[in-house]
Amino acid sequence: MTMFPREEFMTRLDKVKKSMKEKDIDVLLVSDPANMCYLTGHNAWSFYVHQMVLVDVNEEMPYFIGRYMDAFSGVVKTTYLDEAHVRAYSDDHVQSLTKHPMDYVAKVVKELGLDKKNIGVEMDNYYFTAKAYAQLQKGLPDANFKNGDLIVNWVRIVKSPAEIKLMKRAGKIVEKAMQATIDTMAAGVRENDVVAAIYNAQIKGTEEFGGDYTAIVPMLPEGETAGAPHLTWSDKKYPENTVVAVEIAGAHQRYHSPLARTIAIGEPSEEVKRIAEITIEGLNAALEQFKPGNTAEMVEAAWNKVLKKHGFHKESRIGYSMGLNFPPDWGEHTASLRPGDKTVFEPGMTFHCIPGMYLDNFGVSISESVVITEDGYETLANFPRKLFTV
Amino acid sequence: MTMFPREEFMTRLDKVKKSMKEKDIDVLLVSDPANMCYLTGHNAWSFYVHQMVLVDVNEEMPYFIGRYMDAFSGVVKTTYLDEAHVRAYSDDHVQSLTKHPMDYVAKVVKELGLDKKNIGVEMDNYYFTAKAYAQLQKGLPDANFKNGDLIVNWVRIVKSPAEIKLMKRAGKIVEKAMQATIDTMAAGVRENDVVAAIYNAQIKGTEEFGGDYTAIVPMLPEGETAGAPHLTWSDKKYPENTVVAVEIAGAHQRYHSPLARTIAIGEPSEEVKRIAEITIEGLNAALEQFKPGNTAEMVEAAWNKVLKKHGFHKESRIGYSMGLNFPPDWGEHTASLRPGDKTVFEPGMTFHCIPGMYLDNFGVSISESVVITEDGYETLANFPRKLFTV
Repeated sequence: MTMFPREEFMTRLDKVKKSMKEKDIDVLLVSDPANMCYLTGHNAWSFYVHQMVLVDVNEEMPYFIGRYMDAFSGVVKTTYLDEAHVRAYSDDHVQSLTKHPMDYVAKVVKELGLDKKNIGVEMDNYYFTAKAYAQLQKGLPDANFKNGDLIVNWVRIVKSPAEIKLMKRAGKIVEKAMQATIDTMAAGVRENDVVAAIYNAQIKGTEEFGGDYTAIVPMLPEGETAGAPHLTWSDKKYPENTVVAVEIAGAHQRYHSPLARTIAIGEPSEEVKRIAEITIEGLNAALEQFKPGNTAEMVEAAWNKVLKKHGFHKESRIGYSMGLNFPPDWGEHTASLRPGDKTVFEPGMTFHCIPGMYLDNFGVSISESVVITEDGYETLANFPRKLFTV
Repeated sequence: MTMFPREEFMTRLDKVKKSMKEKDIDVLLVSDPANMCYLTGHNAWSFYVHQMVLVDVNEEMPYFIGRYMDAFSGVVKTTYLDEAHVRAYSDDHVQSLTKHPMDYVAKVVKELGLDKKNIGVEMDNYYFTAKAYAQLQKGLPDANFKNGDLIVNWVRIVKSPAEIKLMKRAGKIVEKAMQATIDTMAAGVRENDVVAAIYNAQIKGTEEFGGDYTAIVPMLPEGETAGAPHLTWSDKKYPENTVVAVEIAGAHQRYHSPLARTIAIGEPSEEVKRIAEITIEGLNAALEQFKPGNTAEMVEAAWNKVLKKHGFHKESRIGYSMGLNFPPDWGEHTASLRPGDKTVFEPGMTFHCIPGMYLDNFGVSISESVVITEDGYETLANFPRKLFTV
């Protein structure tokens, strides 16, 4: 996968170590697959078993600790890490009731002489379970554990030019996938047949570069279920008249560019048209706030100001920082576009700005993914910002 | 989604409560999305935020606790749970640095008067983080926490006729997806273009029923990378001569039927043919062990006996129980086909039996998903068990 030169990984590690020092953390145990990939280049569906990247603040290179087939056949062959920086547990640790991979990780920490240090762990990451923490505490009784949540994520929030390049490729892919959605969706067509066309476009990508899997599956809430946007598709046929809010992404080398558009099947009502117009007006106002020096909450405020003008009010999160990721989320869990978030924008930050309006019998959501530039923003994809009718 | 009558959910709950009583657990807090779906019918990509199903051993119905849009717009409208059994936290708990959803869960447990009970939590589930446990312990200082890992999973291991029906549909889908793989794969074709065809077939399903997303993405390790099976596809073109080990699944309503076949691009060498023959001979011998009363380790032993006859030895897990699941794994984390696993087979259990042989420059894996019947087993899909050449 290594799309980045070794120096880029070293720059990332330097920033992480700086943050570790500020938090008085000597050793960071990284469980988040996106953070592991960010620091080492390891890109594999190996996160369904326990694995770790260990960053020692006093050592240049990190260590990968995982299952043998992932560590030696995978990491050593596909990343800049050498065999000396890889440790593997035997396969009888996998989903075993008697041996836990974290007992092995504790052993490695001891061997490296780090077992009396301040050790940061990613407390609220999906892949750092309660049991993983309990076994580490048991195996490392002399360590002083600290919450190392989001240390790497906050470094990831500013993307390098090489990362932006990958995200723009993902933007090209999502344009194709959204067009496939519009081309396929119609009354009488099954939901899953539309989704099949989306996946096909997402993975085919373009002639120059292929598509990767996205960290979230396509979401197409329709009509009354629009208020429950996380229900996934079924094999029901679309009715003659409905509104579908489509949220998908393109992905390239694990980097994402999400995009939402709303599609009316059959001539939309005046109400639907009006809500779509307000959503676009609000989105446009929100986007204008993306420039260095502004804060995340200003984006939401601009959106809400437009809503207020039209007699609506909705205080909510309308977006988040995103980029490199693995399931189950392409969001980075750092800055959110919502009231109270004072994150100051810098060039290279990337956000998915996805305002939506959900009424009783339909919902509209229209979004853009943006990168903050020196004096404003650019969208990652280029797709008409309007209500589509099929 | 509800493909099951309410009585089936009640039967499942009864079995879970029986197991809870044996373990002296009064309240079970379920974080595993597959377990939540199994007990309530809630099927949504909502597990990227914290949510719980609460089972009180003394109450008929479980509770769903989650984000508002998932709880009231989703669960109430799509499952047998009524509003009285649903609790929702406000959106400012989502990926927040100040409010944690588990503080809200603790509050609900208190309101239900269960805060001095023995509370089981799924310690090693992906979606039960170290932080989630810490916040629960803080919010419920009088509770006695117990490890409730895999309680629901061990109930899930035996499938009902209604579940087997869904898994056989998934079997039909994986036949189509594997055929699409063989039809598309060729020298000079990009890996991602083959994967696009796989996704297209997986989601289209058949004319009678549509396909669902699978809990693991297609895996197609090729040539030298066969030993690192979790690396995902790239946009490289297949060379003139190579061997690709394909592992995919069909999914229908979250139920899976995985299948592996190996495809030679160009005429395979005698060595590849021989290894494929041994793998099939070993798989056939392994499959014969699937019958009520036999144990999981007997399957692996039968495989290894064939290997030994041919001068090989490999002690490893060659399969696992599977069925209903969400990313990142379709395995159920209960019985494994490996030495030492004494799980006794019963009718209705379903396994993916996937033996493989990985040599220096190629790997072969050929698998079957099976359901154990009254006197033996049936495969969930029907696909030629051979080395394919394209």
